[in-house]
Amino acid sequence: MRIGWALLMTVMVMASTTAEQEPQLLRLMPWPESVKTVPGSGRLIVGNSFSVSVSAGGANPQLRRAVAIFLDDLRRHTGSLPLDFAFAETGKGQLQISVDRASKQVQELGEDESYSLEVTASAAILKAPSTLGAMRGLQTFLQLAQITPQGFSVPTLVIQDKPRFPWRGLMIDSSRHFTPIDVVKRNLDGMAAVKLNVFHWHLSDNQGFRVESRRFPKLHEMGSDGLYYTQEQVREIVSYARDRGIRVVPEFDMPGHSTSWFVGYPDLSSGPGPYSIERKWGVFDPAMDPTRESTYKFLDEFIGEMAKLFSDEFFHIGGDEVNGKQWDANARIQQFMHSHSMKNNADLQAYFNERVQKIVAKHGKIMEGWDEILHPDLPKSIVIQSWRGQKSLADAAQQGYRGLLSSGYYLDHMDPASAHYAVDPFTGPTAGLSDTDKQKILGGEACMWAEYVSPENIDSRIWPRMAAIAERLWSPQNVTDVGSMYARIDKINSWLDAYGLTHNTARMLMLKRTADAEEVSSLHTLADAVVPVGIDGRYDLPSVKPTALTPMNRLVDAAPPETVKGRQFAALVDAFVSGKIKPGMEAEIRSTLTQWRDNDIHFRALAENSALLQEALPVSRDLSALGQAGLEALDYLDRAEKAPEDWKTQQLALTQAAMQPKAEVVLIVAAPIQKLIQASAGEAPTNLPSPKRAD
Amino acid sequence: MRIGWALLMTVMVMASTTAEQEPQLLRLMPWPESVKTVPGSGRLIVGNSFSVSVSAGGANPQLRRAVAIFLDDLRRHTGSLPLDFAFAETGKGQLQISVDRASKQVQELGEDESYSLEVTASAAILKAPSTLGAMRGLQTFLQLAQITPQGFSVPTLVIQDKPRFPWRGLMIDSSRHFTPIDVVKRNLDGMAAVKLNVFHWHLSDNQGFRVESRRFPKLHEMGSDGLYYTQEQVREIVSYARDRGIRVVPEFDMPGHSTSWFVGYPDLSSGPGPYSIERKWGVFDPAMDPTRESTYKFLDEFIGEMAKLFSDEFFHIGGDEVNGKQWDANARIQQFMHSHSMKNNADLQAYFNERVQKIVAKHGKIMEGWDEILHPDLPKSIVIQSWRGQKSLADAAQQGYRGLLSSGYYLDHMDPASAHYAVDPFTGPTAGLSDTDKQKILGGEACMWAEYVSPENIDSRIWPRMAAIAERLWSPQNVTDVGSMYARIDKINSWLDAYGLTHNTARMLMLKRTADAEEVSSLHTLADAVVPVGIDGRYDLPSVKPTALTPMNRLVDAAPPETVKGRQFAALVDAFVSGKIKPGMEAEIRSTLTQWRDNDIHFRALAENSALLQEALPVSRDLSALGQAGLEALDYLDRAEKAPEDWKTQQLALTQAAMQPKAEVVLIVAAPIQKLIQASAGEAPTNLPSPKRAD
Repeated sequence: MRIGWALLMTVMVMASTTAEQEPQLLRLMPWPESVKTVPGSGRLIVGNSFSVSVSAGGANPQLRRAVAIFLDDLRRHTGSLPLDFAFAETGKGQLQISVDRASKQVQELGEDESYSLEVTASAAILKAPSTLGAMRGLQTFLQLAQITPQGFSVPTLVIQDKPRFPWRGLMIDSSRHFTPIDVVKRNLDGMAAVKLNVFHWHLSDNQGFRVESRRFPKLHEMGSDGLYYTQEQVREIVSYARDRGIRVVPEFDMPGHSTSWFVGYPDLSSGPGPYSIERKWGVFDPAMDPTRESTYKFLDEFIGEMAKLFSDEFFHIGGDEVNGKQWDANARIQQFMHSHSMKNNADLQAYFNERVQKIVAKHGKIMEGWDEILHPDLPKSIVIQSWRGQKSLADAAQQGYRGLLSSGYYLDHMDPASAHYAVDPFTGPTAGLSDTDKQKILGGEACMWAEYVSPENIDSRIWPRMAAIAERLWSPQNVTDVGSMYARIDKINSWLDAYGLTHNTARMLMLKRTADAEEVSSLHTLADAVVPVGIDGRYDLPSVKPTALTPMNRLVDAAPPETVKGRQFAALVDAFVSGKIKPGMEAEIRSTLTQWRDNDIHFRALAENSALLQEALPVSRDLSALGQAGLEALDYLDRAEKAPEDWKTQQLALTQAAMQPKAEVVLIVAAPIQKLIQASAGEAPTNLPSPKRAD
Repeated sequence: MRIGWALLMTVMVMASTTAEQEPQLLRLMPWPESVKTVPGSGRLIVGNSFSVSVSAGGANPQLRRAVAIFLDDLRRHTGSLPLDFAFAETGKGQLQISVDRASKQVQELGEDESYSLEVTASAAILKAPSTLGAMRGLQTFLQLAQITPQGFSVPTLVIQDKPRFPWRGLMIDSSRHFTPIDVVKRNLDGMAAVKLNVFHWHLSDNQGFRVESRRFPKLHEMGSDGLYYTQEQVREIVSYARDRGIRVVPEFDMPGHSTSWFVGYPDLSSGPGPYSIERKWGVFDPAMDPTRESTYKFLDEFIGEMAKLFSDEFFHIGGDEVNGKQWDANARIQQFMHSHSMKNNADLQAYFNERVQKIVAKHGKIMEGWDEILHPDLPKSIVIQSWRGQKSLADAAQQGYRGLLSSGYYLDHMDPASAHYAVDPFTGPTAGLSDTDKQKILGGEACMWAEYVSPENIDSRIWPRMAAIAERLWSPQNVTDVGSMYARIDKINSWLDAYGLTHNTARMLMLKRTADAEEVSSLHTLADAVVPVGIDGRYDLPSVKPTALTPMNRLVDAAPPETVKGRQFAALVDAFVSGKIKPGMEAEIRSTLTQWRDNDIHFRALAENSALLQEALPVSRDLSALGQAGLEALDYLDRAEKAPEDWKTQQLALTQAAMQPKAEVVLIVAAPIQKLIQASAGEAPTNLPSPKRAD
């Protein structure tokens, strides 16, 4: 049984509240394990002279750095200056922190992240067993500090908190499109803000090898187009992440997804070469040659070098999507397989993984890989990251392997936050696992595959949806109320702006650029009604063959994966057609529909001057027609007249057509309009699956 | 006689145009010396495979770097990727550049910046005597590249261009509030975009000493709160600026404005000390002691160190606003003056300046200073920067001194762009100078004094108004049409977003933060109707004593110095009351007035929850009353009924009250509403001076 969030709040409010003291919706995400608000007991003011003190025992440099970062963040959130706020002597701060011990020098999986935070009108007390918990508690305090009639302040409350899962990650693919250092940093800030603790860095793939290797310099020199991280920059990121309680797990994908390695080192591959950096998207033939000792000698030296550079205990070897074509075509490899009694390519890859695992272990690391690496010959210490789903995880756990869920958390699928929020590591096949087996499931990771993201729009594909996944992995399993999630994510969305994340601002600038005009409200109206097709939809379009060189400056690249306007309109219509009508509701629906109907003429004037907008003309026409259809449906409902059959058929055909992707976007508002049409014809509304995918 | 811009355009269009081929307003700022458009001859397409080639002779590394920067900028403006666009072999590019020679290694005052740009439908040819001119021409090309129905493209045209003045600068005060390196860099990008060539860096003042000195480390260690530039960062900025054709002139203000020096080195001062970093704004007593040899020994070593760090030929010693109180109070100094037959403190300062000038010259530099340093004993090589006005400049020129105009270009005065645009170095006393004396006037500099700017809002105080000043200093003197300037500055305003300048985005985020709400349109409506009082107005307010520690997170800090809405409304009303009425005009005025009248109730709901907005409640009430008054005036005009005398008196009193600064902002829309009231009462409209200043 799911206990909704609203109920949870009610249970937890300790004192009775008057209307004036109604507890406001707390801007907290992920929601803590336990929150007890104390209405009417005032607020702690966070003024210019606000100060933080640290208990004498726990004053380790790590904690001092964490507090300095916290104060900087607080300045960003309040518009304060470098000289505002301060450290205070032990016991003297308005925020007093005590920790029992420092977190490990190199942050480890499973370290205690719990904390408690008690806020009264005179002071806040933050306690944690280790610095790591204190970092999490500081983020909670930051989220609670908001402008009020008394200035910036924090409500009085008591929070007890700890994460549900010890592994809560975000993977960023920096190979398909390079992620500049400043983009990585601001996303680490965002991750820390929602209490994520693993940055999984996908650093090599067919389209680019992104780390400087001093041992094998042709990797980055020939495999990156000059777009790579120096070792100094990697160390900077590892340290930046460490200061925020985030582990950095590097991934070097092998034996497939490795064309970029072969540009400089063709002998590593199973084919004849030569190779060039891949510009297309998809799964390609080149793969490392698992049969030659020279491959393992190379990997031993390479992994040895990277194992020193990346301090984390885990090392991700990818291992996904080997199509085997180079192996099939290579007589020497076929001979090797025959002489070693290997039945198929899976056996050959398992042999490769076994060899690589020994190398990884030799350099002091634990091997991690995608589903495909799972094989009984590998030691139980390895970790499986599942893009296939809970069944794979359950199988792995039952065989004794630890695992992570990524299926359902693919940000490039362009699903709404609610879809990710509904995915729990313990549903379906994993729900029935024994408690011991459940322990093997460490958590999950969102994946930001980068075929269709640039430094300009990547933030808008990660945020704010990442916060919903972060909540799923941190908060108690019964925190599932979607209404509460959206109410809070809308607040967090704006709040994250302070970290320099561009998920809101870039959209505005990108849309403006497509039109090269000052007055672009018709474009915003259109953009608010559409969402991009997911990555699969973009692969599938035969007319456009996007590559690594294709600019990302179109409507689809600027449009956010879900829109507040679209969500609110759908909710209004749902309430309306189900008879939960409130005053003003119909007028609001009508006003939105009218705006859509009338938008096309303005949008056409903009699109006339822009090659980038012309592809969206059919979408705009569809939106206009949908607006008209919705208005007519409302008219029938107003007159309590059942809409005629032929009108209905015609309008439903129109909505179906409007649901087809055009210009690689989908009119997300078509589904609620279909419900209005159905309602006007006296039919029950169809709850469609998300119409976004082409497939 | 002034030739308006519209006329200029007409004269220059070579071929006749059909309606379809009407030349669009070119997004160029500063406007070039000569532009010949060729309507109907097509456009040069700037596609993904666009490439640039450089003539064999002129392929110096400086030019290659300039082209690389240009390509990056072009990517930012078109949303393209690092692998798009390329260098091509000589003669093969769509843009072909030829230069005769490299610019000087260390950029010099007066280097040739001219260029010509010829664009046909198949290629663009950019020619310049030196790399510096090519840089200017590349910026012109960038501004011309816009989205069209054919994709990004540049119109066919022929441009001949060169600057009117050789010194076109922006001063940023990094002492009052520190300017982080990334803020400096993006402003250098903006400067290059509008062809400015001097970054004057105000690096020390009472409130902070901002450069690392290895010779005198207590300067930055004790005088900066830890907010200073390392020497490595200074070199980085000098080199970044050089790559964009910008000289960097450092200013170390002396003998006054120097409290921050004395924190670490009190013996330099004329008073007893000890000193601490000044937190207040204004003119203060501490000044260097001009009577001790140790002062000059110190300055010799310090200037020697800085002369090496800053490669530019000029060295700015400030020299302004010494109140002399420490000198008056120091018996030893009085004795010195007496024994040297000095009549007053001006004599003593002149002595100081003479000594310092010799030190500056010894280290290979030319001394520059504010008006106060002008003294016949100083050599004619020095340069006077005038904050006092054209008369000072004319006097200096007649005495043989070179000078720069800054009076009229103070960005912290919060004047509209049109006010700065109207200020010409050759008006008033300078207009009558002989041609030889006119040569002494090198140009001008805008000044961004930083008492009331933070890294968050500084861009919005500089841009887009800086572009109008840049045009004044680059374009022919007869380019003065304000309508054309505003039409182009509005385009440049958005275009500058691509450089990461936050003049547009920060406002949005800051306003949102004051309310901590998602729906803040009422706040935007209010912010669009107000402008901040200028710096003098902020000094004068007795109730608030802002210091270096005061957060800049209020409405006044987010409100831009002028608003498009305010400007457009004023223009509409001017046309309306002068009888130049067009269809729809009255409806537009009425709609705006209604919005203002009805805004207060929504704003009140927001302000209720925010200590930061409550001060603006009276402003919102005034706006509402102004909206109502304007609507009533329109009603009288509609009925062709003369408004009654007592109504008029009452309403004019209301507008007068509304014009008084509140919350340190001024309702810029009060003046046009006053005109409506006057018109409704049959009076001629009063053209008021800007109502913004408290004085």
